[in-house]
Amino acid sequence: MRTPVAPIAITRFDGGSVSSADDLLVTEEPLEIRLGHGPEHDRKEVRLSVTMRTPGHDEELALGFLFTEGIITDAAQVLRVAYCENVKEEERGNVVRAELHPAIDPDPAKWQRNFYTTSSCGVCGKSSIDAIRTQCTVPLGRAPKLDHALITALPDRMREAQTVFKHTGGIHAAALFNEKGELLILREDVGRHNAVDKVIGAVLTRNLPMSACVLLVSGRAGFELVQKCVMAGLPAMAAVGAPSSLAVQLARDSGLLLIGFLRGDRFNVYSGEL
Amino acid sequence: MRTPVAPIAITRFDGGSVSSADDLLVTEEPLEIRLGHGPEHDRKEVRLSVTMRTPGHDEELALGFLFTEGIITDAAQVLRVAYCENVKEEERGNVVRAELHPAIDPDPAKWQRNFYTTSSCGVCGKSSIDAIRTQCTVPLGRAPKLDHALITALPDRMREAQTVFKHTGGIHAAALFNEKGELLILREDVGRHNAVDKVIGAVLTRNLPMSACVLLVSGRAGFELVQKCVMAGLPAMAAVGAPSSLAVQLARDSGLLLIGFLRGDRFNVYSGEL
Repeated sequence: MRTPVAPIAITRFDGGSVSSADDLLVTEEPLEIRLGHGPEHDRKEVRLSVTMRTPGHDEELALGFLFTEGIITDAAQVLRVAYCENVKEEERGNVVRAELHPAIDPDPAKWQRNFYTTSSCGVCGKSSIDAIRTQCTVPLGRAPKLDHALITALPDRMREAQTVFKHTGGIHAAALFNEKGELLILREDVGRHNAVDKVIGAVLTRNLPMSACVLLVSGRAGFELVQKCVMAGLPAMAAVGAPSSLAVQLARDSGLLLIGFLRGDRFNVYSGEL
Repeated sequence: MRTPVAPIAITRFDGGSVSSADDLLVTEEPLEIRLGHGPEHDRKEVRLSVTMRTPGHDEELALGFLFTEGIITDAAQVLRVAYCENVKEEERGNVVRAELHPAIDPDPAKWQRNFYTTSSCGVCGKSSIDAIRTQCTVPLGRAPKLDHALITALPDRMREAQTVFKHTGGIHAAALFNEKGELLILREDVGRHNAVDKVIGAVLTRNLPMSACVLLVSGRAGFELVQKCVMAGLPAMAAVGAPSSLAVQLARDSGLLLIGFLRGDRFNVYSGEL
């Protein structure tokens, strides 16, 4: 079992003083996602991607990734996700295999288009958004009713629940809250996109409703994160940091409530209305 | 000409008050990088990648990307990088073409291995590091002599020079300093890896020496950023945020000076010595 933190000896400089110290780092390791039929390697197995991630909730990460990248359109299309056993000793725990329903054929053309999102349909902001909207098969859930006090309380609730951040100070988080501001799912990862995929994978695994929920992310709201919300049908997203131009365009075109710069008792609404 | 910031009308919530405001967002748009021979589309042209970036210094971004991904090993292998003219109107400024020296053949096998760094040689931290070390053809430059006062002065110098951050509050930066702490090159981008590639591309374009320099990044020090420094031969890197486990391993294996959590008059040294 790989762990999300790793011990390390460092040298600490604090004003004039220098000292040796034991520190904890957030773990970053590659994860390979494979697709296939049946429990073991088959002829048509696809090695889909390698992503650098923090170990933990890898099955959710794989499921969320497949869903938000449009490779599957329903969690039932994946029978199970499991670590591959037929790999080298040092790769154990870094390779997962999504076992697809026999009726589902992994379509390489589809996921290649996804990885090079815009290349098949033009390289501009509008075409990037059109590509997402064409792929998206899930309608956005009902928008949550959120008031000022509830929204501004969310970052502290997320931070308090972040176990890896407490130890390392260096990890992204994504947290799903319901309309009452209750924390439903929190996931941490060195990659902000992985943290979001893990949350969405957890929602799919548990068959939770996405409607009337808001996803909070610890960093900025880039295009890729808004894309993942839209693909998953999540109706609202809030970010501690700033959104990008294309993220706001996609949110507005999709009807997603997008909140940014959520700090203290302040925030901005970039898309949608409270 | 595409611009790095975009105006937008937002709703601002500040304590009890709600107001409409004009805001500036950082621009995020796709950039496609193509490789080929001669100034125009040729039979062997390769569409290498699409990355989401902030417009500006796109030629440097392409050059830095090709170098840090190991697709070229010398800036002289690229005759020029220019925006493609033979694209749709809305794609103008989002597609660049690197014109390779006639003696250089773009080798798809090579860059495919790069994009899926670890899949050809095992999916574990050690194999990820081995892959970088095998590809790396540039020795690390001479390590800079940096003292405590110089190091702690760097973040303010970078911040003061960040024009897009001042307007938007939401963009990553990478800055190259010499041994005296003088700012040589600063680049900003929505993608932290793009900011680093732009700096390295600028260094290559100007034929500046990498030795005795330190690269400062505004965020965390992940594996990918340390990889780019190692590939470029940059001997030292400092980050405002935390490093990951694999970033530290790669830095130690490569002899890179790695500083993290550089804030106020404090920082940690994770690899190498001052």
